[in-house]
Amino acid sequence: MIIVTRPAITDAELDHIRERVETLGMRTHLSRGEARTIIGCIGDESRLQEAALLTLPGVESVHPVMKPYKLASREFSADRSVIRVGDAAEVGGRSLAVIAGPCSVEGRDMLRETAFSVASAGAGMLRGGAFKPRTSPYAFQGLGEAALRMLADVRAETGLPIVTEVMDTRQVELVAEYADVLQIGARNMQNFALLSEVGRVQRPVLLKRGLSATVQELLMAAEYVMAQGNRDVILCERGIRTFETATRNTLDVAAIPVLKAETHLPVMVDPSHAGGRADLVAPLSFAAIAAGADGLIVEVHPCPEQALSDGDQSLTLAAFEKLMIDIRVFADAVGRTLAGPTKPWRAEAA
Amino acid sequence: MIIVTRPAITDAELDHIRERVETLGMRTHLSRGEARTIIGCIGDESRLQEAALLTLPGVESVHPVMKPYKLASREFSADRSVIRVGDAAEVGGRSLAVIAGPCSVEGRDMLRETAFSVASAGAGMLRGGAFKPRTSPYAFQGLGEAALRMLADVRAETGLPIVTEVMDTRQVELVAEYADVLQIGARNMQNFALLSEVGRVQRPVLLKRGLSATVQELLMAAEYVMAQGNRDVILCERGIRTFETATRNTLDVAAIPVLKAETHLPVMVDPSHAGGRADLVAPLSFAAIAAGADGLIVEVHPCPEQALSDGDQSLTLAAFEKLMIDIRVFADAVGRTLAGPTKPWRAEAA
Amino acid sequence: MIIVTRPAITDAELDHIRERVETLGMRTHLSRGEARTIIGCIGDESRLQEAALLTLPGVESVHPVMKPYKLASREFSADRSVIRVGDAAEVGGRSLAVIAGPCSVEGRDMLRETAFSVASAGAGMLRGGAFKPRTSPYAFQGLGEAALRMLADVRAETGLPIVTEVMDTRQVELVAEYADVLQIGARNMQNFALLSEVGRVQRPVLLKRGLSATVQELLMAAEYVMAQGNRDVILCERGIRTFETATRNTLDVAAIPVLKAETHLPVMVDPSHAGGRADLVAPLSFAAIAAGADGLIVEVHPCPEQALSDGDQSLTLAAFEKLMIDIRVFADAVGRTLAGPTKPWRAEAA
Amino acid sequence: MIIVTRPAITDAELDHIRERVETLGMRTHLSRGEARTIIGCIGDESRLQEAALLTLPGVESVHPVMKPYKLASREFSADRSVIRVGDAAEVGGRSLAVIAGPCSVEGRDMLRETAFSVASAGAGMLRGGAFKPRTSPYAFQGLGEAALRMLADVRAETGLPIVTEVMDTRQVELVAEYADVLQIGARNMQNFALLSEVGRVQRPVLLKRGLSATVQELLMAAEYVMAQGNRDVILCERGIRTFETATRNTLDVAAIPVLKAETHLPVMVDPSHAGGRADLVAPLSFAAIAAGADGLIVEVHPCPEQALSDGDQSLTLAAFEKLMIDIRVFADAVGRTLAGPTKPWRAEAA
Repeated sequence: MIIVTRPAITDAELDHIRERVETLGMRTHLSRGEARTIIGCIGDESRLQEAALLTLPGVESVHPVMKPYKLASREFSADRSVIRVGDAAEVGGRSLAVIAGPCSVEGRDMLRETAFSVASAGAGMLRGGAFKPRTSPYAFQGLGEAALRMLADVRAETGLPIVTEVMDTRQVELVAEYADVLQIGARNMQNFALLSEVGRVQRPVLLKRGLSATVQELLMAAEYVMAQGNRDVILCERGIRTFETATRNTLDVAAIPVLKAETHLPVMVDPSHAGGRADLVAPLSFAAIAAGADGLIVEVHPCPEQALSDGDQSLTLAAFEKLMIDIRVFADAVGRTLAGPTKPWRAEAA
Repeated sequence: MIIVTRPAITDAELDHIRERVETLGMRTHLSRGEARTIIGCIGDESRLQEAALLTLPGVESVHPVMKPYKLASREFSADRSVIRVGDAAEVGGRSLAVIAGPCSVEGRDMLRETAFSVASAGAGMLRGGAFKPRTSPYAFQGLGEAALRMLADVRAETGLPIVTEVMDTRQVELVAEYADVLQIGARNMQNFALLSEVGRVQRPVLLKRGLSATVQELLMAAEYVMAQGNRDVILCERGIRTFETATRNTLDVAAIPVLKAETHLPVMVDPSHAGGRADLVAPLSFAAIAAGADGLIVEVHPCPEQALSDGDQSLTLAAFEKLMIDIRVFADAVGRTLAGPTKPWRAEAA
Repeated sequence: MIIVTRPAITDAELDHIRERVETLGMRTHLSRGEARTIIGCIGDESRLQEAALLTLPGVESVHPVMKPYKLASREFSADRSVIRVGDAAEVGGRSLAVIAGPCSVEGRDMLRETAFSVASAGAGMLRGGAFKPRTSPYAFQGLGEAALRMLADVRAETGLPIVTEVMDTRQVELVAEYADVLQIGARNMQNFALLSEVGRVQRPVLLKRGLSATVQELLMAAEYVMAQGNRDVILCERGIRTFETATRNTLDVAAIPVLKAETHLPVMVDPSHAGGRADLVAPLSFAAIAAGADGLIVEVHPCPEQALSDGDQSLTLAAFEKLMIDIRVFADAVGRTLAGPTKPWRAEAA
Repeated sequence: MIIVTRPAITDAELDHIRERVETLGMRTHLSRGEARTIIGCIGDESRLQEAALLTLPGVESVHPVMKPYKLASREFSADRSVIRVGDAAEVGGRSLAVIAGPCSVEGRDMLRETAFSVASAGAGMLRGGAFKPRTSPYAFQGLGEAALRMLADVRAETGLPIVTEVMDTRQVELVAEYADVLQIGARNMQNFALLSEVGRVQRPVLLKRGLSATVQELLMAAEYVMAQGNRDVILCERGIRTFETATRNTLDVAAIPVLKAETHLPVMVDPSHAGGRADLVAPLSFAAIAAGADGLIVEVHPCPEQALSDGDQSLTLAAFEKLMIDIRVFADAVGRTLAGPTKPWRAEAA
């Protein structure tokens, strides 16, 4: 921590600042400039994070020096984390992870159809909402535990690990019984009770960046989970809120390399929510992979115009299949692999 | 809902759009322009809110016509809601409501001292955090139930109703046992599980606007609470996140009159979090009252420099006392009353 | 300037950083922490503002200590600047300055009618656009010099000094011949050529904050004008661009006290552009005055629905008259005076 | 244009609205809903753009239907524009355009060295600032016409067309004498006088998106230039201003496909300003090309730590050379070509 004093500080004020810092267990070191004095605070900076240093008379500004995250930082782990999902899948390794599926699980048939289709196109995990965070209390809220059972059944058939959102601390145990990855939605990124709770279960967590969360806040949210013992956190950039209205959110593609420089955790991208438009999913996916993302989470629906939620941004089965073909060159370009189409599912279905 | 078509739409596409809208139970009405056609959708628009109309071939844009909130809207209640708190206090009436107290309850003595002081200065309710949403998992997280007991004890002594935050659905019952007002923090404004849960208890809810929530989203969050049966929602503008770094947040003072035009619910302002600086609390309070706020929630601490959280933005007891004197002229200017200093507490204490 | 090093910095890197700083004429002072070293740079910091210190191997972060503005800073002038406009008006003194008039000068009659009306209601200056910055090249661009002549004629009749925008360096001389105050619009706040040019004439400048300009950038724009010799700069907060769509812009009311703490220059507020809605002009005006603004600039039109620009946010003559009556209590509350209605103009006109 | 009425509108109000719209030369078409009426306005919508329809009693909201840009729209030109620069270069064709060079022209030697180096690495155009828009009036403002002469000399030697910024309407003629492309900086994107002036010369214009400009505003700025006769506008996404502080700006990578859908004009990306950090230039460049950009404009300096401006975000000559090698796979992936290294210039120089 560095404290910069106001120009006209008195000796008594300066002494008081040093005393306060030293009481909190740090040493101080002064550099006197012509007008201001710089007070370097040496020691464990976390002790000062609580301190209301700006209230001390004579203090003009305070500059933290250390990163507030520890377990999530590159300094904690030089190697990049590779997170195992279910028996076979992983995120953060050489192979790009692709999670695909409907926004909401609307029924068994549509889920099964989507799962077989995305699996055959090369997706490695299935997404599907059972509990849905909806802006309106009158909107479809998800099928709840029934949807979890459908997801588990479809996993049994397809072998795809399942990713589904948990919204309530009381649901964590239930959702963890079924899901391979617990998703924390953007609106819950700073739901600290929920973060702590998923930190206590042994399931990887897909943590979506909040609509107005800084990269640092995203990492602090990951730290909440990790501090409880669960180190398997997958970060997900899904667009931030800006003044631009042409897109639902603004994909912060630079967050990918910035996160890669700050943390050992893997970073995925959600091109569906970022743009909010089906026609933007492909270019945003290409950009994400080119910028170094470890994978994608994509909304896919057998009939987007009939979707009960997020239809405007969902890909059709065919469009997803095309996406998986088209991203291959970008995967190659960044030296990553991508699971290939396993079988001509659509042809078979026809 | 209004649907605008693309210029080159075919008749088949147009028929398909109409069919889709009519299947959902609305009637359609066409206005053919030179290039585009405008399709007015007549009936209960909420049926279309789920519909992915933009995915229909030929659709260029979709414009909602009705407000998505009902119970929270002015149309639902022509009269402004006045919300009773405890036995004596109210929010939304002619008298301005002032809630004051420490960010966190740090101990019985500091809470008692603060409570007596703010009461004597004219505050009508006491705030104090028992469960604290902190950005860092390593920061002070609040004293929990012990703090709730202290709040209740101090209420017994001072008569001040208490306002405290609830962060977890599992805590709602517990917090509601002690608190007179349940506060939902900005980071939980779209924690829909929590909103629904506080909607089921009979305690007024102080709902803080999320950091990047639009006015409409704030009203939809209120709607979540109200849809469960609890109509006593107090909205709170506390600053939004922008690019400006001189202040912690940007107080959206225009949200006050905008909300007053949209809803019958009362609107309070938190000048402490909005500015994040003690020196800005007074001018932001004046502005809030001038713009029509129904009250203020202010952080006050006996010794801000020793505060365990938010010290930089907390007023001292003396500064709060001065604030209460200084805002009186603004209360007068807007035709509102303000509870006066009840007794010369500081003098008595001295 | 403070430089913080990376944890693993080598001695050679540290020496290179010090050398680079010292070559630029500053002294360095080291505080060695457990991991990082803090390098205090003592001397004239402006020499480092150009330096690409982050490119030096071993540098983690750089923290400026001094304000980049000089002439605009409180340190430069302890007294608040009171800026004389024309023969009689001033901005920044005890009396609140109110500038009113149409967005664009649309003709002699409407200008005259507006001017007499706002003057009689107590406005001290007349605004009116001759050259208009319009988002569309096909929109009404203003009447140009003809409008300047009308403004001058109406000034002769009413005694109101005139405020009008200049958009082009080539127009500065012409506009300065007619205008009492040169307005720099929000979109030109960082048109540095224009700022320099108006810095060379002897006319007060009303400098509007850019849509996404920080408070510091606004002050640097003022510094541009002042650095050329023209010290008469009036700052104007007019709303910033955020994600909120309920209002045209978001009035940053906290910018008023923040600016008052940073600069001796007067600060006005434009409630018309901030909200973009006629119904918000009054509450935003009240808030601005309560927060310490030195005055208001308000759009007024004899018939807003016929206005050629900004009609949606223009007050009618009657609404402006009411505003001037209603703000008086707020002026009183902050200890400011307000010129009163001079004569019963509307009655006379009737 | 669609007008939606308030629920309780009277017949007289409705008549007045229709009359007003019809006076402006459009026809109206009513769809009466249960509460509100939808008024479709048929005809040339541009006539309504000026109209203050929200001020009309009974109007609740107004929804434009047509795009406000014409010459810039896809509808105006089905074919993508390919813009010729100088004798040989072009932007918008199959080959990716790469513009590279120093932020400012600091002298003849550094410019020459940079130009030969970037040319040999495959850059097709040389950038270099002669007139610099600097936030501080005390910062280096560029070498002016001397720099233009150096640029022209280096063009003669290397064959690279030159791109340089023009900041002042009075400089347009001068800069156009030397430059092959006139750059309009982000801070001047809505300097309408300047846009009109560059619209009158026969030089391609590189138009940078403003810090808080929407995609639509960027297109309207292009329309300003085109409306004066100059159709050769190259759009440039260079990052927008958001709350995130980890990067200088936030690259809006989605703006690339959004613009491609809206306009026939080519779209370049400036990864240097977007991230503000040399280490982010490569990943942002990859992302931009993957998302469909027509080229890049990159800051390169022989010795970034000595640069007089923007050193922190400038690539070294070697880093640029590596970038050009690394982006080749992404160019291939999108089916674009990239001029190759022409000769082993660095080896020759050594």
